[in-house]
Amino acid sequence: MSYSMSKAALPSFEIELNALSAILDKAAAFAAEKKVDPAVLAAWRLAPDMFPLSRQVQIATDQAKNGSARLAGIEPPRFEDNEKTIDELKERVAKTLAFIKTIDGKAIDGSGDREITFPLGPTNKGHMKGDDYLTHFVIPNFYFHLTATYAILRHVGINVGKQDFLGAIPMKIT
Amino acid sequence: MSYSMSKAALPSFEIELNALSAILDKAAAFAAEKKVDPAVLAAWRLAPDMFPLSRQVQIATDQAKNGSARLAGIEPPRFEDNEKTIDELKERVAKTLAFIKTIDGKAIDGSGDREITFPLGPTNKGHMKGDDYLTHFVIPNFYFHLTATYAILRHVGINVGKQDFLGAIPMKIT
Repeated sequence: MSYSMSKAALPSFEIELNALSAILDKAAAFAAEKKVDPAVLAAWRLAPDMFPLSRQVQIATDQAKNGSARLAGIEPPRFEDNEKTIDELKERVAKTLAFIKTIDGKAIDGSGDREITFPLGPTNKGHMKGDDYLTHFVIPNFYFHLTATYAILRHVGINVGKQDFLGAIPMKIT
Repeated sequence: MSYSMSKAALPSFEIELNALSAILDKAAAFAAEKKVDPAVLAAWRLAPDMFPLSRQVQIATDQAKNGSARLAGIEPPRFEDNEKTIDELKERVAKTLAFIKTIDGKAIDGSGDREITFPLGPTNKGHMKGDDYLTHFVIPNFYFHLTATYAILRHVGINVGKQDFLGAIPMKIT
């Protein structure tokens, strides 16, 4: 089977969002062990003018949800962006995963030459060809915010490793 | 034109490595302004048991270099992994970019069903189908280490933003 936009997008979103959920479990376990309010972790940042953990998870899930919906030519569900705890963030990841599974890969595959228009900050709009939008915007942003989430948790001392980040990828180890 | 593995890989490596080079310029300018030895920045970490900046850049470039070479079925050049300063890291990025440009995209496109074997840590080997290796290993790892580099610099107070990370992507803004 040849490569396709849906193959580049949907299985990675699924594997990585499941990995993100498991990483958030480790964060919740750390909070419980250290008697830290999970809302403190959700608000943690690497720098005062960087987004907190909660926003990193919101944007990562939005890239998967909105990116694949725009490419498939359908309206993505809107989430409230009001998650304050690790449990609420996990629920957002689960809702995103459920939505991703409803997407028709063939609709994504037909979008390579279509112009995609998307919000860019509060007032601007970005315009890209579908395949460029996937390759140079959705995928880099998705991994950026996943890694930022990972880095915040790693920075506060939570024991997550590269395997936690990559998730259940189809790899044989010898 | 339909989507392909080489399209998913080579242009993102090129855009992102150029972006990384520009981010390292900002790091060098910061070091000069604050009278910080650039070797101090190259050795900075987000956590004591995480890789320093220099290693993050080494691995990011290796994913681009070794990943695309393995998919194209050729031997990647070996770098010494001895960079200690921002300038040396920039040189490594430039060498990687020069190599990436020599790669035949069609050789990558023919590798989807081929088993790729690659080192995994000091003793193990990973085995994946070519398309899975690109989608679930090379691309996530590439962006992981680019984002870790960005996060280290952001954490020490260097003024880099999302646009610096994404680089010169083919996007029109209105």
